[in-house]
Amino acid sequence: MNFIDINYNANLENQLNFIVEIDRIKDIIRKSKLFNGSRFENDAEHSWTICIMALLLKEYANFTVNIERVITMLLIHDIVEIDTGDTFLYSDERKDAYEKEEKAAERIFGKLEKKQKEYYLELWKEFEAKETNDAKFAAVFDRLEPLMQNYLTEGYAWKKNNICYDMIIKNNKHIEEGSREIWNFVLKLLNKALEKGYLDK
Amino acid sequence: MNFIDINYNANLENQLNFIVEIDRIKDIIRKSKLFNGSRFENDAEHSWTICIMALLLKEYANFTVNIERVITMLLIHDIVEIDTGDTFLYSDERKDAYEKEEKAAERIFGKLEKKQKEYYLELWKEFEAKETNDAKFAAVFDRLEPLMQNYLTEGYAWKKNNICYDMIIKNNKHIEEGSREIWNFVLKLLNKALEKGYLDK
Repeated sequence: MNFIDINYNANLENQLNFIVEIDRIKDIIRKSKLFNGSRFENDAEHSWTICIMALLLKEYANFTVNIERVITMLLIHDIVEIDTGDTFLYSDERKDAYEKEEKAAERIFGKLEKKQKEYYLELWKEFEAKETNDAKFAAVFDRLEPLMQNYLTEGYAWKKNNICYDMIIKNNKHIEEGSREIWNFVLKLLNKALEKGYLDK
Repeated sequence: MNFIDINYNANLENQLNFIVEIDRIKDIIRKSKLFNGSRFENDAEHSWTICIMALLLKEYANFTVNIERVITMLLIHDIVEIDTGDTFLYSDERKDAYEKEEKAAERIFGKLEKKQKEYYLELWKEFEAKETNDAKFAAVFDRLEPLMQNYLTEGYAWKKNNICYDMIIKNNKHIEEGSREIWNFVLKLLNKALEKGYLDK
């Protein structure tokens, strides 16, 4: 991998080389296909979509959110997968993924100078913990997009990975903590998926 | 293309179908390659990168910016290319691209209800006009990313399209209106590109 080597403003150059480093997220392929089913999505594309979702749908938050913090969390939340790869939400490896991802966050955000490193690392941890209002609302969209992708591709990743209705409820019910209205929508969508045979009970 | 058809909350469903519609941006392929040169970039990936750039580099703005507005402009600025395709910055067709793009913006943002349609359409026009501080700062990153991509791929798109130093200066000098520091960096980067033979005078 090439890096920027202009020797003009060391901090700016370091920040730009961080941007070059995280570009590898574009090679991290997810388990769900695009809405049109044509191919799998990568992490950068996923992050773009869920940022626009959060902006467009902020009226449905259960509380007031700081949308700049929400968007920043969503832009950076998958950067750790450059080191760890994409772990499927419903897989066993998901359970011990956090430790590896935290190590990755330390390494990658560690490329920034101290103040920016701490800011982004703390935001990443806040997103993962899902305890603050901003993190709860951000988490809604990280989950909503793959649910819509599966619905629109007739349950492609659900069927391929033997995911049933109860597993989806268990792993996505925290959507309700960020947006009751969107969770109600998801319940309707899952019922329709059952009806259409995209999903098993 | 499938659409969401749950019949639960008509406005939410309409907003989600807007998200499905704009997903087609992931098939719009740009003229520059990724920093590692492995393939061409698409518009969603480009938008993700320049959003993180704007957040990370906001200290270099010539003035105070509203970063939420800057990020929103960057997230949506290329959505029009779903209808028009990517027009190369240095091409003749660029000159009359605006009219077509405005028509596309009217069609695509027109899928949202009136208030959101107007908000996003106005932000898109503001970005294109590059007259406000937020738009001037957003424009910095739309231009900086391809300059870095060309530098790191030994001038790939510059050489392929016969782009010389003077054309780059002419078409990118408005970076200075958003960030003098980043423009000074770009001048150094272009000089180094000349030295290394990535670019002709």
